[in-house]
Amino acid sequence: MRILKAQHAGRTLWGQIEDGDAGETVHVISGVVGERTGETLPLSALTLLAPAEAGKIVCVGRNYLDHIRELGNMLPDDSLPKEPGIFLKGANALAEPGGTVDAPDWSENFHFEGELALVIGQRAQHLTPENALDAVLGYTCGLDLTARDKQKTDLQWFRAKAADRFCPLGPWLQTGLDPADLRVQTRINGATRQDSRTSHMIFNVVDILTYVTRYVTLEVGDVILTGTPDGVGPLQPGDVVEVEVEGVGVLTTHIGAAASAG
Amino acid sequence: MRILKAQHAGRTLWGQIEDGDAGETVHVISGVVGERTGETLPLSALTLLAPAEAGKIVCVGRNYLDHIRELGNMLPDDSLPKEPGIFLKGANALAEPGGTVDAPDWSENFHFEGELALVIGQRAQHLTPENALDAVLGYTCGLDLTARDKQKTDLQWFRAKAADRFCPLGPWLQTGLDPADLRVQTRINGATRQDSRTSHMIFNVVDILTYVTRYVTLEVGDVILTGTPDGVGPLQPGDVVEVEVEGVGVLTTHIGAAASAG
Repeated sequence: MRILKAQHAGRTLWGQIEDGDAGETVHVISGVVGERTGETLPLSALTLLAPAEAGKIVCVGRNYLDHIRELGNMLPDDSLPKEPGIFLKGANALAEPGGTVDAPDWSENFHFEGELALVIGQRAQHLTPENALDAVLGYTCGLDLTARDKQKTDLQWFRAKAADRFCPLGPWLQTGLDPADLRVQTRINGATRQDSRTSHMIFNVVDILTYVTRYVTLEVGDVILTGTPDGVGPLQPGDVVEVEVEGVGVLTTHIGAAASAG
Repeated sequence: MRILKAQHAGRTLWGQIEDGDAGETVHVISGVVGERTGETLPLSALTLLAPAEAGKIVCVGRNYLDHIRELGNMLPDDSLPKEPGIFLKGANALAEPGGTVDAPDWSENFHFEGELALVIGQRAQHLTPENALDAVLGYTCGLDLTARDKQKTDLQWFRAKAADRFCPLGPWLQTGLDPADLRVQTRINGATRQDSRTSHMIFNVVDILTYVTRYVTLEVGDVILTGTPDGVGPLQPGDVVEVEVEGVGVLTTHIGAAASAG
């Protein structure tokens, strides 16, 4: 099933589309984990929003070995990280599928990072390997936009990662997926720039969920971004970024002209 | 005026107390920036909560020179930071005034950092030095609990700073304060351990607000922690932490026995 958040006739709604429904009928639900209200709408009538109610977006850095190598971030002995490297974005970072994100004029090196994302469907603390995936409502595509220059110079990855609209997400949540070995691709203006599989993660989705929920309570609608493979690079105004996750679909983001930081 | 969030007879409410009201009558309001409903309650009947509706808690690291020096975090040429060092906590980190926060069993060095905090009263983007303080609803006391050992070893300050209940806040918001030169003190079991003034900040409240809102939209109820002065140190179960901000009051936090990280 697909679960989506959308704007329709001035209101925000959540809906479901059954797998295999070629007509793409959206069954309106009462909330992100709500019941069907009986109302249906055609998908074509909706403007999709980022499918989250994020209080927080929990992100994993350095989770694919080839990406660690491409940025020169190997540990001194070239060993793998022993624990996931977690950082936060706030809900201000969410951007809708198909939307435009302006390249910031305060960064000289504005990068794309395509990722498998997931949204939490039940309050989660101290998840175990056995129950971790039960906390996932569905999987989607995430674009972890990054001011690479500021990431290198700032004390912490605040503006580098958590600035407004630095997290396009969507187009919807796919339920019932096994996240263990999904292809993740990023295309820039149609050219493939990232192409890997979630089986290449250092910490898989279960590892991430059990680690994060040792420290932090996840709430319904919170987002997890699982890290990016190698192939990252800079974006320019006019670029079209497509993140495709196998079994989910394609998240398209248009890069706009540099917005002034004021 | 004091603005507070509290629990009363099973419901959560916001209220106001007029300055100089020795009887401490709470005028219930319809929300954090709401209107009075006409209902009044005595302060003594309420259980105070962290006075925020935080989607995010925006924190400043290394904002007092003596604290930078005590942790050995000087820049190579001993110059001052040129920009505030910002990091995030989520709402999961909030803890109520007078509450108990268990020392984590996954940290060997669990530190207190007393701070001036503030809560946002209007959606804020691209604030200027002229209008920045207009976005502040009120000032309060914040305790930036920190797993110092993990802060030193982790990629980013996630569990070190943003774990559940790592941000006691309160007891209420005080409106109409000038944040430029307020005394900030932290006492552990009655002994003063931090004692400084906000005039010693490297980046003052106006600097912080204008910087943060260049990158991130602040929403009503978001929290800013403005950094800690020197004197930080480790906490043990049984300790009582008091953070006092001049003109606001005292935030008391009890440190409980180590909770298992599971």
